Amino acid sequence: MDFTKPETVLDLNNIRQALVRMEDSIVFDLIERSQFFSSPSVYEPNKFKIPNFNGSFLDWALLQMERAHSQIRRYEAPDETPFFPNDLLPTILPSINYPKILANYADEINVNDNIKKFYVEEIVPQISCKEGEQQENLGSVSTQDIECLQAISRRIHFGKFVAEAKYQNDKPLYIKLIKEADVDGIEASITNSAVEQKILERLVIKAESYGVDPSLRYSQNPQSKINPQVIAKLYKDWIIPLTKKVEIDYLLRRLEDEDQSQIEKYV
Amino acid sequence: MDFTKPETVLDLNNIRQALVRMEDSIVFDLIERSQFFSSPSVYEPNKFKIPNFNGSFLDWALLQMERAHSQIRRYEAPDETPFFPNDLLPTILPSINYPKILANYADEINVNDNIKKFYVEEIVPQISCKEGEQQENLGSVSTQDIECLQAISRRIHFGKFVAEAKYQNDKPLYIKLIKEADVDGIEASITNSAVEQKILERLVIKAESYGVDPSLRYSQNPQSKINPQVIAKLYKDWIIPLTKKVEIDYLLRRLEDEDQSQIEKYV
Repeated sequence: MDFTKPETVLDLNNIRQALVRMEDSIVFDLIERSQFFSSPSVYEPNKFKIPNFNGSFLDWALLQMERAHSQIRRYEAPDETPFFPNDLLPTILPSINYPKILANYADEINVNDNIKKFYVEEIVPQISCKEGEQQENLGSVSTQDIECLQAISRRIHFGKFVAEAKYQNDKPLYIKLIKEADVDGIEASITNSAVEQKILERLVIKAESYGVDPSLRYSQNPQSKINPQVIAKLYKDWIIPLTKKVEIDYLLRRLEDEDQSQIEKYV
Repeated sequence: MDFTKPETVLDLNNIRQALVRMEDSIVFDLIERSQFFSSPSVYEPNKFKIPNFNGSFLDWALLQMERAHSQIRRYEAPDETPFFPNDLLPTILPSINYPKILANYADEINVNDNIKKFYVEEIVPQISCKEGEQQENLGSVSTQDIECLQAISRRIHFGKFVAEAKYQNDKPLYIKLIKEADVDGIEASITNSAVEQKILERLVIKAESYGVDPSLRYSQNPQSKINPQVIAKLYKDWIIPLTKKVEIDYLLRRLEDEDQSQIEKYV
């Protein structure tokens, strides 16, 4: 997949490979987060007095990171979606003229607030090794949270490419569904329960494989760093449904960026 | 291991466990780096014109990251060693009063320049998926390089705790060796070839296990994301020798922070 070549990005085989590879990153990142306590201070709004800032310590750290990364043009890339789109800095690198891959409103499809909410409320309590916190680890915790959030966000917003590829592959179907604002029809067209089930099974195997020191695999009770079922549930309850939401939100607006002649042809 | 309780940090069993766990992080980080091209522009001094900055793009990105992390007190922790110790910012969090664990000159033992050099010159060319670069990935490359460098740096500088623990466990031996500036004797006392061999074997197993999608393990030619021998060689040629250098450098100065009465007792 090469973002300067749209046809490689909108190839559903390439998208699938990229999504499978992202599972590894997400599992690695969650394993790293699982070393630390749940650390509620990191997530409590205004727990620490930070000058000119209103939010949690995680928000503050994430904003600093996004500002730094915006300077190295992270958010110019069509597969990166910032949590603080209004607070970025100009890039210090020469801009890349990405070819058009997605519709012109694509940046407005942003579910990062939902992602942060379920991550903090549902995931952190289940993956951290222990409830409570160690003051000296709050910085490390937030740093690892940022890795997790960015990896999950990239995975979910990749739904835009899935949606665009499906749209391109069957314009007659989608133009009709979109014209009729048929959300159920769109959802049915992008849902493949067998594939979803396979994702969940693969995630359990990956979490088992990456979460256990393999040199101890044949010892009694090799301890896994992470509960594989938690990873599967994270995908089932949050990542897959939110990816679908991104796809549907993207498709519902797709005719905003379509030629009138195309639309008339199919309706 | 709890850095507010020195006895847990200087327990050689805990240190060993921590070092084994760090292997996982290093392997994960190198696997993530291996997705990208070698990207020489990232490492070439002044390849990009950055205002008021003299160095490579990686240097600049690493400095921004260290400045952000210093604000969340990363470098107050005795197990974190900055690459740019003279350019950090004050913390915005209340400082942690870590108890004394290491000798008072410990922060001056810093081999990060050596680490950056071997990482850029020896590791990057061997682990990146392909020679060359894609402009749109230079930011991602530097971000992942920073993860790798920080994980490797933490592993190598952990040698300070190994050295301090060994010193505490056998003061008579070390005071004598240090007084005589017996570098070979010190090196012999901290070297265990059988343990080193075991580390290398374990790393190969870990790289094989974490580098292959386990759901494809029994298919023909499941492709590994990384060459396990490269990870073993990285440890053999660089990480283990530099850890020893840290230990030796630390021990050679250890009497600077010892009571005269103790020294006289053993010499």
